[in-house]
Amino acid sequence: MASLTSWVSPDRNGDFSIHNLPFGIFSDGGSSQPRAGTRIGDFVLDLAALAGDAQVKQQLGSFSGLEGVFGQASLNAFAERGRAVHRAVRADLQRILSESTDVPALLKDNEALKQKALVPADKVTMHLPMQIGDYTDFYAGYHHAYKVGVLFRGPDNALQPNYTHLPVGYHGRSSSIVVSGTPIRRPRGQILPNPAATPKQPTTVPCRRLDFELELGCFLSKPNEMGEPIDISKAEEYIFGFVLLNDWSARDIQAWEYVPLGPFNGKNFGSTISPWVVVPDALEPFRTEPLQNDTPIQDYLKEAQKQSVFDIQLEVDLTTADGDHVDLTKTSGRNLLWSFPQMIAHHTVGGCPLRAGDLLGSGTISGTEPRERGSLLEMTEGGKADVQLEKGGVRRFIEDGDSVTMRGYCEKNGVRIGFGDCEGKILPAHGS
Amino acid sequence: MASLTSWVSPDRNGDFSIHNLPFGIFSDGGSSQPRAGTRIGDFVLDLAALAGDAQVKQQLGSFSGLEGVFGQASLNAFAERGRAVHRAVRADLQRILSESTDVPALLKDNEALKQKALVPADKVTMHLPMQIGDYTDFYAGYHHAYKVGVLFRGPDNALQPNYTHLPVGYHGRSSSIVVSGTPIRRPRGQILPNPAATPKQPTTVPCRRLDFELELGCFLSKPNEMGEPIDISKAEEYIFGFVLLNDWSARDIQAWEYVPLGPFNGKNFGSTISPWVVVPDALEPFRTEPLQNDTPIQDYLKEAQKQSVFDIQLEVDLTTADGDHVDLTKTSGRNLLWSFPQMIAHHTVGGCPLRAGDLLGSGTISGTEPRERGSLLEMTEGGKADVQLEKGGVRRFIEDGDSVTMRGYCEKNGVRIGFGDCEGKILPAHGS
Repeated sequence: MASLTSWVSPDRNGDFSIHNLPFGIFSDGGSSQPRAGTRIGDFVLDLAALAGDAQVKQQLGSFSGLEGVFGQASLNAFAERGRAVHRAVRADLQRILSESTDVPALLKDNEALKQKALVPADKVTMHLPMQIGDYTDFYAGYHHAYKVGVLFRGPDNALQPNYTHLPVGYHGRSSSIVVSGTPIRRPRGQILPNPAATPKQPTTVPCRRLDFELELGCFLSKPNEMGEPIDISKAEEYIFGFVLLNDWSARDIQAWEYVPLGPFNGKNFGSTISPWVVVPDALEPFRTEPLQNDTPIQDYLKEAQKQSVFDIQLEVDLTTADGDHVDLTKTSGRNLLWSFPQMIAHHTVGGCPLRAGDLLGSGTISGTEPRERGSLLEMTEGGKADVQLEKGGVRRFIEDGDSVTMRGYCEKNGVRIGFGDCEGKILPAHGS
Repeated sequence: MASLTSWVSPDRNGDFSIHNLPFGIFSDGGSSQPRAGTRIGDFVLDLAALAGDAQVKQQLGSFSGLEGVFGQASLNAFAERGRAVHRAVRADLQRILSESTDVPALLKDNEALKQKALVPADKVTMHLPMQIGDYTDFYAGYHHAYKVGVLFRGPDNALQPNYTHLPVGYHGRSSSIVVSGTPIRRPRGQILPNPAATPKQPTTVPCRRLDFELELGCFLSKPNEMGEPIDISKAEEYIFGFVLLNDWSARDIQAWEYVPLGPFNGKNFGSTISPWVVVPDALEPFRTEPLQNDTPIQDYLKEAQKQSVFDIQLEVDLTTADGDHVDLTKTSGRNLLWSFPQMIAHHTVGGCPLRAGDLLGSGTISGTEPRERGSLLEMTEGGKADVQLEKGGVRRFIEDGDSVTMRGYCEKNGVRIGFGDCEGKILPAHGS
């Protein structure tokens, strides 16, 4: 791909080069109204201000009629405009932000509009980018599913028989999704202090096995009619963009509650997403194939486009309240057995209606090596082994005051596309 | 309780006597804007029109400031006003609708306002009463859980060890909830034609074991802060009201998909609710105790109010496309092991944020006898026995063109409080 440079930020090694231009919702001291922006280097570009400018309206056709859309507190209305509009807006943004812009009068040389529309990123508050209707969490990270299965059931029965036939998923809790930086309170709940004892005797205490889960999130841009499946050949058209997702998990609460109907309080105390929605066009150069599935799959899951996942480098680190630190994980978004188009086709094969703003989680993404694992459960062999921190601390699960930060980026030929941070700090349990 | 009569409808044996006065969202030919109404006999009373009337505003204090609230297309804003406002509005509605009203000039003798605000029920279209954020489905119908457990695992292991310790529940799909009268398309999906065969070989076909599930739904009126549990002593304050819920189930799709993360496509093709939200005050005279739980339960689930469920008579019937018919079920809302306040306390013990408009399902409600069962799965012993219809037909599961109707009512001392119909008809699968 041709490499561009922006007059705002010449840096092509940061997450937010001119090749990225993700969408998000921000507010700042100058206006309490959350509204749409894009990120370029260390600045947020106010898209509502841009779309409201008379010259911009006149000369950039893609912004026509978007002033009200960008002025809203979620990206739902913009997402619903469809892929062609997102593409045109992003192309016009690259045009005016490029070092060699052919329309410098619009923004580059327009001090008044720059003053108004370019806000230093450290001066803004980021909000949830979408109003989320339903949240569905899949389980497509093969190495995670296999490793957890080995821990619970041994290698012969690690994967359930359905695992390679369909993208296993469950309905999550949309109300508990928060944006990066929001503290997460450790949940209390019923656990079994002695799981092997009979009869089972639970107690209600703060979670003792609190974990992170490294996932990719996928926001949808448009609805299907209830009763109408989305054909897999059309499924990509329903994708607005991607975020990082930390699907915090209370392993001990989940272990006691989840048979037979699935995870509930083990998950619904909070899930954290990164604030910037990276659009598929930005990730296009980083397409790759998902993990090989040797099981013959059903027709409705067969993809013509084989390169249906993205080689996103994913990293997790942990910092304690007293400043100890550890780089926990390095893995890639290619470690999925099922792509998001396959998840969308499966989700709707029975007619389930999806809506703009719905969030799909990939499931925990892990590689095969210990430090490629997307959760502490895997790294610590089910809580039996220590993870060493840099200054002498150890962890098996997350302690109060710990911050977990996820990062994701793609890099090729000197161009980098990044997601920014997905961070959350654990507060002590209620009443502790 | 004192028995009242309304000048609109002297009938006290119908679902919608003056003792009920539920809330719903309707539209009619006169206005395409969905708005709030209550139901009295065979009429819908337009609450937006009532709240907009100058005399009403002046003389009925409870309606002050509610014109805009009742003009909205969902009851969420009204629900958030809180129990005291719902109670005051209902008392004022009883006052103006009573045969012996002391303010006849407001409505009874006001031909212009009657013409405007009293709409024949057969002339309106009912809509979803709430904008539903998240939908949670519990599993509190003890006799259902036990019977299904016996069918799947035998009597010795019918109930999972957690069942009597906590209200088992899972996150459902809010986008697929529809109002009574909306047709439901039979889902396609992966099933195992021969579940006993190894290796498992699924196929993708229209569901062959389509079932209903008789439930009560509970709408919430206000949010809790994320991280803040709702104490069980306060849980009733979060309840706005109740509806009937048919949680349609594709048994064969669910059987293949649901281990380990729970029901997904087996449920998310559609769930039907009745349109009128019956408020707790109307059900107060029908309080009763839930089923006895011999297991010592955790403190956060202990209720001071022992009469925490309602003795609602529940009925299900089925009508085929060619007019055959059968009364399937008669049971009661008392057949729950866990009350809605217990479900709310459990849902939030770990800090999960609930919101106004969230819907909780009770789980399938069954009695112990064959014709007290809340699903065909139970009635037919897992699809092995026929249910006889009146004109000679038989059913094991639901066929295309069948309509299933649920009804619910409470009755005491000649007063009846009813829910109206919760009806849905099954359309052939997509592409069939």
